[in-house]
Amino acid sequence: MTYLEDIRIGARREIGRHTFTAEEIKSFASRYDPQPFHLDEEAAARSHFGRLCASGWHTAAVCMRLLIEDRKRQVAAMQARGEPVAAWGPSPGFRDLKWLKPVYAGDTITFETEPVEARPSQSRPGWGVLTLRHTGTNQHGEIVYSILVSAFVPRRSV
Amino acid sequence: MTYLEDIRIGARREIGRHTFTAEEIKSFASRYDPQPFHLDEEAAARSHFGRLCASGWHTAAVCMRLLIEDRKRQVAAMQARGEPVAAWGPSPGFRDLKWLKPVYAGDTITFETEPVEARPSQSRPGWGVLTLRHTGTNQHGEIVYSILVSAFVPRRSV
Repeated sequence: MTYLEDIRIGARREIGRHTFTAEEIKSFASRYDPQPFHLDEEAAARSHFGRLCASGWHTAAVCMRLLIEDRKRQVAAMQARGEPVAAWGPSPGFRDLKWLKPVYAGDTITFETEPVEARPSQSRPGWGVLTLRHTGTNQHGEIVYSILVSAFVPRRSV
Repeated sequence: MTYLEDIRIGARREIGRHTFTAEEIKSFASRYDPQPFHLDEEAAARSHFGRLCASGWHTAAVCMRLLIEDRKRQVAAMQARGEPVAAWGPSPGFRDLKWLKPVYAGDTITFETEPVEARPSQSRPGWGVLTLRHTGTNQHGEIVYSILVSAFVPRRSV
């Protein structure tokens, strides 16, 4: 991946899209979030959601998969161009995970990533701390998911 | 569930245990977090984790399932005792999700919940805001997962 110095703050970019089918929503929920409005259309119709909708953890997990697949494509493209690929460090965690709107069965969510802050690390010489905001937006243009993630990113030169 | 007035701050309680098998770790990761150290023992041995370990999203999803199952047991017990069951409102979100240590294949994680703050809601008369900390602790007594969750909880009388 890129070095700290090559990060462009505000450069938002699509990482992928996903359509949440009723079958997939129920399959995830039956394993990890067995609440009626994630499992059954009729129960969902009687709930405050009104329709079958995905577990928020399902949305988060799909975003993660698209991020990993995007990263693999980015690395492959950089290698194909003969560019050095910086090895990113672990993520110290994240904050501000928000499920802003329900993700209903049949919704197509477009996930995007945007660097919102980049600074040299105080604790790790040679490294920077990059903060990214990942969002998911439905086919009506409504943001349904948002999360702030930090990662250690190497500096090109110190 | 209980009313705001019946919440006991600091009353930590186990909600369930789960053993993460290698098979299950790979199955979740292949769908939602396809990184080598979640998919393959040999690749994991070469990574900074050293051994096959679960996606952090997998840990979060298992915690969610145990919370839902615990809630169903709690409601059934209250109904069996003839107690009124308060309908909790939606969660405004959460913060401070932390994956503090890897969850390795074969680890048994004990999940617990603890009310850490309860206060009347400023915006919703008749409701309070309850903040819970959920944690996961491995068989060595190490906390591997921590998350702060808020929920709207009805007040018994206003």
